[in-house]
Amino acid sequence: MEINGVTIEDTFAEGFPIKVARVTITAVTQHWAMVAAQEATGFGTSVIGCSAEAGIECILGGDETPDERPGVNMLICNMGYKNLESSMLNRLGQCVLTAPTTAAFNGMQEAEKQFDTGKKLKFFGDGFEKQAELCGRKVWKIPLMSGDFIIEESFGAVDGIAGGNFLILAQNQAAGLMAAEAAANAIGRVRGCITPFPGGVVASGSKVGSKYKFLKASTNTAFCTSLREDGVCTLAEDVSAVFEIVINGVSKEAISAAMKAGINAACRVPGVLKISAANYEGKLGSHQFPLHVVLE
Amino acid sequence: MEINGVTIEDTFAEGFPIKVARVTITAVTQHWAMVAAQEATGFGTSVIGCSAEAGIECILGGDETPDERPGVNMLICNMGYKNLESSMLNRLGQCVLTAPTTAAFNGMQEAEKQFDTGKKLKFFGDGFEKQAELCGRKVWKIPLMSGDFIIEESFGAVDGIAGGNFLILAQNQAAGLMAAEAAANAIGRVRGCITPFPGGVVASGSKVGSKYKFLKASTNTAFCTSLREDGVCTLAEDVSAVFEIVINGVSKEAISAAMKAGINAACRVPGVLKISAANYEGKLGSHQFPLHVVLE
Amino acid sequence: MEINGVTIEDTFAEGFPIKVARVTITAVTQHWAMVAAQEATGFGTSVIGCSAEAGIECILGGDETPDERPGVNMLICNMGYKNLESSMLNRLGQCVLTAPTTAAFNGMQEAEKQFDTGKKLKFFGDGFEKQAELCGRKVWKIPLMSGDFIIEESFGAVDGIAGGNFLILAQNQAAGLMAAEAAANAIGRVRGCITPFPGGVVASGSKVGSKYKFLKASTNTAFCTSLREDGVCTLAEDVSAVFEIVINGVSKEAISAAMKAGINAACRVPGVLKISAANYEGKLGSHQFPLHVVLE
Amino acid sequence: MEINGVTIEDTFAEGFPIKVARVTITAVTQHWAMVAAQEATGFGTSVIGCSAEAGIECILGGDETPDERPGVNMLICNMGYKNLESSMLNRLGQCVLTAPTTAAFNGMQEAEKQFDTGKKLKFFGDGFEKQAELCGRKVWKIPLMSGDFIIEESFGAVDGIAGGNFLILAQNQAAGLMAAEAAANAIGRVRGCITPFPGGVVASGSKVGSKYKFLKASTNTAFCTSLREDGVCTLAEDVSAVFEIVINGVSKEAISAAMKAGINAACRVPGVLKISAANYEGKLGSHQFPLHVVLE
Repeated sequence: MEINGVTIEDTFAEGFPIKVARVTITAVTQHWAMVAAQEATGFGTSVIGCSAEAGIECILGGDETPDERPGVNMLICNMGYKNLESSMLNRLGQCVLTAPTTAAFNGMQEAEKQFDTGKKLKFFGDGFEKQAELCGRKVWKIPLMSGDFIIEESFGAVDGIAGGNFLILAQNQAAGLMAAEAAANAIGRVRGCITPFPGGVVASGSKVGSKYKFLKASTNTAFCTSLREDGVCTLAEDVSAVFEIVINGVSKEAISAAMKAGINAACRVPGVLKISAANYEGKLGSHQFPLHVVLE
Repeated sequence: MEINGVTIEDTFAEGFPIKVARVTITAVTQHWAMVAAQEATGFGTSVIGCSAEAGIECILGGDETPDERPGVNMLICNMGYKNLESSMLNRLGQCVLTAPTTAAFNGMQEAEKQFDTGKKLKFFGDGFEKQAELCGRKVWKIPLMSGDFIIEESFGAVDGIAGGNFLILAQNQAAGLMAAEAAANAIGRVRGCITPFPGGVVASGSKVGSKYKFLKASTNTAFCTSLREDGVCTLAEDVSAVFEIVINGVSKEAISAAMKAGINAACRVPGVLKISAANYEGKLGSHQFPLHVVLE
Repeated sequence: MEINGVTIEDTFAEGFPIKVARVTITAVTQHWAMVAAQEATGFGTSVIGCSAEAGIECILGGDETPDERPGVNMLICNMGYKNLESSMLNRLGQCVLTAPTTAAFNGMQEAEKQFDTGKKLKFFGDGFEKQAELCGRKVWKIPLMSGDFIIEESFGAVDGIAGGNFLILAQNQAAGLMAAEAAANAIGRVRGCITPFPGGVVASGSKVGSKYKFLKASTNTAFCTSLREDGVCTLAEDVSAVFEIVINGVSKEAISAAMKAGINAACRVPGVLKISAANYEGKLGSHQFPLHVVLE
Repeated sequence: MEINGVTIEDTFAEGFPIKVARVTITAVTQHWAMVAAQEATGFGTSVIGCSAEAGIECILGGDETPDERPGVNMLICNMGYKNLESSMLNRLGQCVLTAPTTAAFNGMQEAEKQFDTGKKLKFFGDGFEKQAELCGRKVWKIPLMSGDFIIEESFGAVDGIAGGNFLILAQNQAAGLMAAEAAANAIGRVRGCITPFPGGVVASGSKVGSKYKFLKASTNTAFCTSLREDGVCTLAEDVSAVFEIVINGVSKEAISAAMKAGINAACRVPGVLKISAANYEGKLGSHQFPLHVVLE
């Protein structure tokens, strides 16, 4: 299979289950909603070493938000609902409550699982917090020095998927990175998913396990072009850099759509030679996304 | 005391000791160095609920970085060297190693305290990591799919100060926020310090303690203008919003310089009525920054 | 009439006819498409002193562009088709052809009026330019040092409208500016229109004519709050700053939709006191947009 | 000569005389100063088809501006003082006067040549403009709806140089563009110069003349890799894309420093094969910048 002259390998991406919550942040301007969302989703690339995997799903106009102000949707992901609830409390409490002019709304009202994050954060009001209704939503008004902070009482979460991915094999680092950026641009337009790594791009794809027993994951040696002379690199001679795009999403459909959009975008960039995907023979996850199926 | 017609209250900011490390991140372009630094300093506003307090200190030209590429300095702060070492390992491992084209260098070579963060992260290379020297620095080359990641073996840290601050009392929320942004702009030009909150601004100043016994801090009720009718707000009638700027720094001098630059900038914004500072009668910290001294 | 407690004056905006062309710029990444569009629409606020009025209409995903790359739509406006044709030639030739990795496509294929801008710019190829077909479009491939530049042969334009507007009367400058930014954010999501002034905001609303005979327009003295003591300012006492949002669009419907979205957004910002509109008793233009009708 | 393994060709860049004015724009925040400067320097790549060549020289802290607010310096360039005066009047009048919260100051007080741009723009005040002194500068206060606009009476200009340049020959388009961006980042830190093309990069280097007699400049066919089969391209086989960086500056020293910084930065990007420069055997300009001298 080829797209725009780029070979699409007949392989699959391997994802694993994760819990996903969606939060709608609004603010006085688009800029300040984005500032809050960037802080709240920062240090959120992988649950291996971060307290959550998080990212910005989309920008929202005032016609799409409960309080008719500009907004941003973010997805926060963690292993198990208990961890996710803790992530929600800390990230909303430390990075959204503290951000100028923001409000925080439930982006998954319809989900079965609901956390009472707003009900817990209200205590910051020291007894002066007040319950209210806004557009049919139960919210809390917490008095702040800079004005009241509005937060919905509950925030929903669903069973989602982490680790959707594809690999961009390129003639050199710059071509691979441009293609990765173009892919992240394209995925940024697909709702229901995020690319949690810096700028949406993973520079350091990994394999499961290591020669060091204390490490669960280590560099994907077979794809490291600087290890050619060591006889470890299995890449074709013309490939000199590989970037990975990792996608978390609310559903199999969202991740498939994101992979399709991202791969199509990457294949438009000159210097991209091949698209592949990372899997671990089922050791990592239960979800498989065959590239040729996703791209149909 | 007045600046540009704005009253500067005769009070002081109260800071507390914190450990501070500096990391220089470089990348192929300024953009990608900034992307990595933003991810690595995210979710880093307050150690109350974040695993560190972190922020971007300054942008660096290629003439200021070890590998002559564009760069960014970030400061990472935590209570005690043990916590800080853990923050360094996780934030560099998850957000800089994973970011495209980056390298990470010790921004405090001269400090007595040094962490071997690079030496620990090198294991990701699965045995193929190699030691090297770069501009007289001991570094590790870790092979990645997208090229080698260069990281210095050691990263230094010093006794710094957190909680430097001032308060902007304004006619309304917009004036206070514009002034806070102008202050953050000005502090962004002072080396040795960061403003760890979202966009450099705190919307939710707090007091120590709460009527809820399980809470260590709660909203600064005396400064909440929506609590005027409750008889709790002690602000003058013409003030309707207060923003706080919080500053962490490597030294008393850095924080003093930042406070001076920030206050001067805030006082240039129409609608700013008064500058004050947050202190807790010595309950919180051992460092005092009297506004009138700082502004001399 | 009121929105969110803000009075909407019973007046109308006065627009005038202008010719409008739409150009789709694509590039390797969203960033580079935006860089080209910003350069090409710069120095384009008002035909009084600029060679065109121009702005960015919207961002496009690869699913919306002819070459499936990320893109940006820009609108270029001028008085009369002859002037507009000249603007197209200069702005595309100097700012898009010269921009890295871009292509330029006709955003109004269906329009009756078509300029042969691509056919004229092809001569830059010095005889090596080649005609081709791309997605059913007639394009020219112009060889450049950095790769071929693709430009469609023809670019369409229509009879549009300039000068759609509204005024934001605010408690102070900061509140007015925040509201103006929120309004520009909202209008940025409406297709078929642009806000050509810097950041989408006009700081210097004008009246027709002046005491100086050589000037066609001068500051709108009746709305200048610093002229209160001169007895010229007719604004209510509580207003201390007024910003104007000016909108150009492809149709009456586009401008009406933009005004509605913008006014609604502005009225969400604390410190906004009143919304009005600029008209010149029919001296300037033939199009009238009554606020109460537009907001229905 | 080599830098980081990249060959530096023994050739020279050819520049030509141009007149250069510097304007300091300040605003309430860094963001709004930049918004004004971007609009005012837009559509300003080449005097072949633009009404000026313009760009942003540097960002200024409040400690570097006359009114102690955040600022931006821009350079505006044109052929002859008469043209430049006209550019100043139009660009300041249409893009800075109209921009929210801005002020405009003379960035070349010491220059012999001074335009009375502020004195001419003051008429917009319709008789209510007032003269004042600010930090020893003679300024005009023009009443606007959003507050007074402050503009200095005079703006200085000097004999400068346009067309400083170098060429980046790369393995592919992405590597060339990354290197060009890194070069523009580096030059952005050198005072006294600008890179007027979109994002600081020229995609369409040209030669003097054309087979079409009505064209003064056409694509640099010898460097177009898509013309290899036509036998016109003289580039080595491994080069597949060339980008040009064009620099205008206030002096020979500024341009030399910018070329040095930019070339050094470009040579740090993998995939860059060679650095050259554009000259026209003296047909274009009187200033020569030999690469080997500039890089000493």
